Amino acid sequence: RPGDVIRDPAEIYRQSFAIIRREADLGRFSGPMEELAVRVVHACGMPDVAATLSFRPGAAEAGCRALAEGKPILVDAQMVAHGIIRRRLPALNPVICLLDDPRAFDLAEKCGTTRSAAAVRLWADRLDGAVVAIGNAPTALFELLAMIAEGAPPPALILGFPVGFVGAAESKDALIASGLPFVALPGRRGGSAMAAAAVNALAGEAK
Amino acid sequence: RPGDVIRDPAEIYRQSFAIIRREADLGRFSGPMEELAVRVVHACGMPDVAATLSFRPGAAEAGCRALAEGKPILVDAQMVAHGIIRRRLPALNPVICLLDDPRAFDLAEKCGTTRSAAAVRLWADRLDGAVVAIGNAPTALFELLAMIAEGAPPPALILGFPVGFVGAAESKDALIASGLPFVALPGRRGGSAMAAAAVNALAGEAK
Repeated sequence: RPGDVIRDPAEIYRQSFAIIRREADLGRFSGPMEELAVRVVHACGMPDVAATLSFRPGAAEAGCRALAEGKPILVDAQMVAHGIIRRRLPALNPVICLLDDPRAFDLAEKCGTTRSAAAVRLWADRLDGAVVAIGNAPTALFELLAMIAEGAPPPALILGFPVGFVGAAESKDALIASGLPFVALPGRRGGSAMAAAAVNALAGEAK
Repeated sequence: RPGDVIRDPAEIYRQSFAIIRREADLGRFSGPMEELAVRVVHACGMPDVAATLSFRPGAAEAGCRALAEGKPILVDAQMVAHGIIRRRLPALNPVICLLDDPRAFDLAEKCGTTRSAAAVRLWADRLDGAVVAIGNAPTALFELLAMIAEGAPPPALILGFPVGFVGAAESKDALIASGLPFVALPGRRGGSAMAAAAVNALAGEAK
């Protein structure tokens, strides 16, 4: 058994965050947005994502306020839901993923779309002032933007981290152009770990 | 609503995999290992990970056989468990994550280690011939290697995708040097989405 393996969880966190602060370019960030950038880098092991993170000024702060007020967290994937550390949440905020709701299956088939996008349609009465975290499906983010353009109440913050080769970059570009409060990683990279880390960062700052 | 958004799930998959096969260097791979490489790239949006994926020849095939035989899938994080597509599994294989087992909390405190590593200790009677997927904690992978070195029965395959700045690269180097059947992404990158994608790839091939 190697003697130099660091096993103490607090020490692992301390060293990880020290490396991130040394290697990642965090100069553009402050307050909860800086914490969010650090946590997203931590989730993926890539300091360079800090340089490409995009955000609307005040968006992270709005997310913190929404969490402190007990607003729900709406997520597009079970992996995002299970990456959110419940004990960090400031107000026992509900974490809602409707991907496995039977209505999502039916709606997806009827509309010829993904189940992820159909599940977003089911958020309508929960969107107002919520924190949305998209960590998987570009179609979910496109659907959300369409709903809001059609008059659905906007969330307090949209965390845009869909990943992949078809639509991911385009959906995040549309989010950035929307005028809505957002944090997003442009391009193909993203994922549920980054989306959950962004929520965890804001939850810690909202306490 | 933009008219050129692709919403059909089958078409999204088709285009995604076509882009991956065009951009990723898959020349070293064949059979289930090629499918695994494609799915790992798909999970993270980064074609270049295909060039750095490391594996022991025959390891992916051994994983397929283990899944076809109904062996359990042992994972270090709930995010990995929830990224595994159950309907793809060839034999209703149990997916086991013991991170929230009360014994893991106690053992972690007693041993001054992470809960992830403590949960691995609880795998002892399930390890033999299993498929292990580590998508989060380097300490979990170190613990697994220590258990096997101490005489625990080896799994059929170890999928090594821990992520981060402290121990992730070192734990995967130790896995590669161990002589055990493995697939791993060396370096800091990794994550639960890649680990789950690797399982999903082998499950599809095992059918």
